[in-house]
Amino acid sequence: MSRIIRVAAAQMGPTQKAEPRARTLERLLALLEQAAGQGARLVVFPELALTTFFPRWLLDEAALAPYFEKAMPNPAVQPLFDRARALGVGFYLGYAEQTPAGQRFNSALLVAPDGSILGKYRKVHLPGSVEPRPGARFQQLEKRYFAYGDLGFPAFRAGPAWAGAILGMMICNDRRWPESWRMLGLQGVELVCLGYNSAAYDPNGGSSEDAALRSFHSKLVAQANAYMNASWAVAVAKAGEEDGSGLIGASCIVDPNGLIVAEAATLADEVLVADCDLDLCRQGKDKMFNFAAHRRPDQYGAITARAGVVEPVAAR
Amino acid sequence: MSRIIRVAAAQMGPTQKAEPRARTLERLLALLEQAAGQGARLVVFPELALTTFFPRWLLDEAALAPYFEKAMPNPAVQPLFDRARALGVGFYLGYAEQTPAGQRFNSALLVAPDGSILGKYRKVHLPGSVEPRPGARFQQLEKRYFAYGDLGFPAFRAGPAWAGAILGMMICNDRRWPESWRMLGLQGVELVCLGYNSAAYDPNGGSSEDAALRSFHSKLVAQANAYMNASWAVAVAKAGEEDGSGLIGASCIVDPNGLIVAEAATLADEVLVADCDLDLCRQGKDKMFNFAAHRRPDQYGAITARAGVVEPVAAR
Repeated sequence: MSRIIRVAAAQMGPTQKAEPRARTLERLLALLEQAAGQGARLVVFPELALTTFFPRWLLDEAALAPYFEKAMPNPAVQPLFDRARALGVGFYLGYAEQTPAGQRFNSALLVAPDGSILGKYRKVHLPGSVEPRPGARFQQLEKRYFAYGDLGFPAFRAGPAWAGAILGMMICNDRRWPESWRMLGLQGVELVCLGYNSAAYDPNGGSSEDAALRSFHSKLVAQANAYMNASWAVAVAKAGEEDGSGLIGASCIVDPNGLIVAEAATLADEVLVADCDLDLCRQGKDKMFNFAAHRRPDQYGAITARAGVVEPVAAR
Repeated sequence: MSRIIRVAAAQMGPTQKAEPRARTLERLLALLEQAAGQGARLVVFPELALTTFFPRWLLDEAALAPYFEKAMPNPAVQPLFDRARALGVGFYLGYAEQTPAGQRFNSALLVAPDGSILGKYRKVHLPGSVEPRPGARFQQLEKRYFAYGDLGFPAFRAGPAWAGAILGMMICNDRRWPESWRMLGLQGVELVCLGYNSAAYDPNGGSSEDAALRSFHSKLVAQANAYMNASWAVAVAKAGEEDGSGLIGASCIVDPNGLIVAEAATLADEVLVADCDLDLCRQGKDKMFNFAAHRRPDQYGAITARAGVVEPVAAR
């Protein structure tokens, strides 16, 4: 049997700070229409899809506040929700969330084809620093602007429009941490949606990482972790030169063998489509990666017992 | 500064059941000499390097017993230990261990260039089954013949002959489980030695995995997990047609970016050499994968709380 869901990766080119929100929404709608026109039922947009990647700057409160969504949906994005529902297409959308209590998260929503919100995720692995790095042209201040995600890594079982898929979400840096994938794998995830904004240079300073290497890293972690959890993965960039700072592309759709079945060719708005047969996950989930049969959690204590490294003592 | 250790991956071609132990030792010695001649100070041999991969057969006790080493070293392998010490070369060697109390493990030793035993590891992730699969031409009976490793995933700090490296070991299937790598990463591992015997077909039955796909998987997991733990990895096969059953090759040396710097070209006895600069680990360990700064163990509870999958409840 096959349980096929046609998925689109809706890569975005850069969103300049000066771009009006209405223009960004037009782009999202155009990507949605293009994906729906190709028969996709799930469209994955990037992290922070509504704005420029503002954590690259040290901003005061007045400059920062407009980047956050106080409710989702809200009038500015309602047309995307309405059009998706009319088309019978659901989507993953990354955005900056501000709660009524004033807490701020780097978040993503999963909206079902009927318009209902199937799930929400708040980024756990915030990269960067709280304090700006002196002398750096661009900062990475996610630890300053966002609270750590407090929803765990929930997986969601979709309805028949999405073939009953078990879906999970990640955001950007989460994908480099195998723990994120394993938390979803332990819920039987069949398709991971993940959006990102990843610098085309080393965001922590240094000159040893360029766009080619960072694109390789981005694909490598999606491929290996998809394989090791026997899941599909849809990894979607905001790409290109954004406000003078480069972002990698390399959006891709990965199968449960870790093979890339579709990959972006540009750093611009671009739609990739693939038919993801969820039953292809069974080969891994039932055999090599039958977790109940083969995992040895009694040997993994340090993974949850501590965050950091404890080196072995010096040699005798 | 650079802390360079020249490492050799000593891939072995098949070791037929009929091959005398003395002949296998000659091959190990030849590989050791070749690696030493190229300046290597650490030589990584495969899993179960002294025998055919006997878990492919259902064996009675009389047939099984000869595959196990009752002590290590022992007279049959002492020449390898002696020659390595004389050359000032250390090594990783996989073998079937039987303890004085009669317990059996799939084990590996790390022997320092001065001949001392730096560390020992017993395979945690035993694949296969306890009972034979009816009708299968070849079995995978590691769960029948071996006890689960009971030494955890220890890392060892070497002396100056190995540039003070922090070394870790895995065996075969361990490499497909990110937990193995993370347990070593949490000890600051800089170089992971891992030997394997991996079937060139699906060892759990089925026809969807061939040698090319399984070689891709083998490299993919070494590359991604080396990157995600900012470590070198030396992955070494026993390869080729062994007693009628195919084993993949694809031995490789991987840098902390996940890039392959040397890769086997054959399915036979073959030595790969690379200079591994341990300080290349710092880029990852100090920035992107600074565990103390970025890991969130409070969000990883299920990883150690249970072995198997718990799926989300059905959609509303």
